[in-house]
Amino acid sequence: MEKEKELFGHQDADLENNLTAVSVIGLGNMGVALAGAFLKAGYPTTVWNRSSGRAEGLVAKGASPAHTLASAIAASEVIVVCVSTYDVMDDLLNPLTAELKGKVLVNLTTGTPEGARRTAEWAAEHGINYLDGAIMAIPPMIGTPDALIFYGGEKAVFDAHEPLLKQLGGHTTYLSADTGVPLLYDLALLTMMYGAWYSYFHAIALLSTANVSATEFLPYVTNWLQHLIVPLLADPNTARALDEGDYSTDVSNMLVNQLALDNIVRSSRELGISPDWLVPIQAIAKKKVEEGHGADAFSRVFDELKKNGGLVHGK
Amino acid sequence: MEKEKELFGHQDADLENNLTAVSVIGLGNMGVALAGAFLKAGYPTTVWNRSSGRAEGLVAKGASPAHTLASAIAASEVIVVCVSTYDVMDDLLNPLTAELKGKVLVNLTTGTPEGARRTAEWAAEHGINYLDGAIMAIPPMIGTPDALIFYGGEKAVFDAHEPLLKQLGGHTTYLSADTGVPLLYDLALLTMMYGAWYSYFHAIALLSTANVSATEFLPYVTNWLQHLIVPLLADPNTARALDEGDYSTDVSNMLVNQLALDNIVRSSRELGISPDWLVPIQAIAKKKVEEGHGADAFSRVFDELKKNGGLVHGK
Repeated sequence: MEKEKELFGHQDADLENNLTAVSVIGLGNMGVALAGAFLKAGYPTTVWNRSSGRAEGLVAKGASPAHTLASAIAASEVIVVCVSTYDVMDDLLNPLTAELKGKVLVNLTTGTPEGARRTAEWAAEHGINYLDGAIMAIPPMIGTPDALIFYGGEKAVFDAHEPLLKQLGGHTTYLSADTGVPLLYDLALLTMMYGAWYSYFHAIALLSTANVSATEFLPYVTNWLQHLIVPLLADPNTARALDEGDYSTDVSNMLVNQLALDNIVRSSRELGISPDWLVPIQAIAKKKVEEGHGADAFSRVFDELKKNGGLVHGK
Repeated sequence: MEKEKELFGHQDADLENNLTAVSVIGLGNMGVALAGAFLKAGYPTTVWNRSSGRAEGLVAKGASPAHTLASAIAASEVIVVCVSTYDVMDDLLNPLTAELKGKVLVNLTTGTPEGARRTAEWAAEHGINYLDGAIMAIPPMIGTPDALIFYGGEKAVFDAHEPLLKQLGGHTTYLSADTGVPLLYDLALLTMMYGAWYSYFHAIALLSTANVSATEFLPYVTNWLQHLIVPLLADPNTARALDEGDYSTDVSNMLVNQLALDNIVRSSRELGISPDWLVPIQAIAKKKVEEGHGADAFSRVFDELKKNGGLVHGK
């Protein structure tokens, strides 16, 4: 009862303030969280999901259930899509370009930057205003001050709907007119997470061969993160050196790093822990030494990674 | 002159306190730093290097230069070896087992845990007291309170020479009777460093395809490290869950992580950045989903890594 009163209070405010109507397409855990945040802020919210039964909780909180995707699109000015893949999204939206014309499509589906760029082209062809977003948060964080969501697309479209989008997270951040950039940021951060996380598992697997537990090793992990890894990667000089192609070092050169990588790969094999993920990194270090860069920093491997990047997009 | 006085002062103290004589074999940057720390603390220090000309600076500080490796070994009770590889060490020491008999051999050469264990067996066969150490510091840190050095081997041997070894670093830490354990800790920490570091380069290479610089991305890196990566890896619950084989999750399951890895690998390929190092990780995630672990945490990949570890050593 208290909740309902609160809700109606919000809805009155909506009508007074003429809040934008929004439809949420896709009611997985993330879609439910997104719709919930719009509802909580009092926005008139329509919801639709391919399979039924997902909307009930939201309807109880005031959402309007749409019986077809076309009616969900018709109901609102802003259409927020959050489905499992771009392929699923394409299948849903391709037949409805006429209905989407002139509307704002906010795509929060996870995919590749190139997928986001292709979708922006498709939207432009059909007169749809397009924003692509990347959510750097788990569903329980949606609607909180801590939730970080990156956006790309036409700045004017973002600005017009920033008050609505800000309901999803305190750190709502516009990055670029290039709709590929939000997912690029997303994937870049996830890449760092997987590198740090998987290498930690590898470390613990190595130690487990001598019956050293993760708990026993924890003080060293914590110390290493705070005194080596964070200072290394959060150092503006590390970033500046990469930006400038400055691969000099006084400390630990490529030859030393190649030797260390050789020891890790060899030890892992001797102990029966697969070093497959490290082998390509070891190979690049070896290549750089052979090319005469043995006195350079390990960061010289970045040169090799970047060299492979053929396609360069304007921002 | 001031320095010499200081030095002689120390040497007088040595004689009074009967400080252990130590020989340092191998005068690369690290060997020079090790010998320098012993000299600074007043220990009678003999030095030897395969190629000449490396000892001069140390001799000026009071070190005794040995003209042969045999005389360097004869000069001291404790022999500290720090050469480039175990193969180099084996070539040097194998002909001199008789000279080493009854002495303490402290091996600070970097290698593999299995190499350290084989060397301990070799030492035992020849009546040599053996400690294996792993230096988690760069040469300028040697002798400072911050330098971390791990040791393994017979505890009584370590205890007898702890005052000497402590001159090399404030964090001188005895780990295990198993001489493979110090290098295992060393390689485990280095593995984490390479995972975090290389994945950062990959992230920056991805962003560079849209002309986003490392400096521009830095605030997100810093935030991600402090709010996601460090809390994840420094969490006692993460360690406890691995130790107990608890792969449950409420947050981001293997299926979600597999999708994210697919997106990173696919995006990297589309943008011309080699995802080779991620492909084995993606394959394990896929395998775990196929085996029915799609609802488990990403940490389920640890199971696969550990499973490959055949050899288990007692501590």
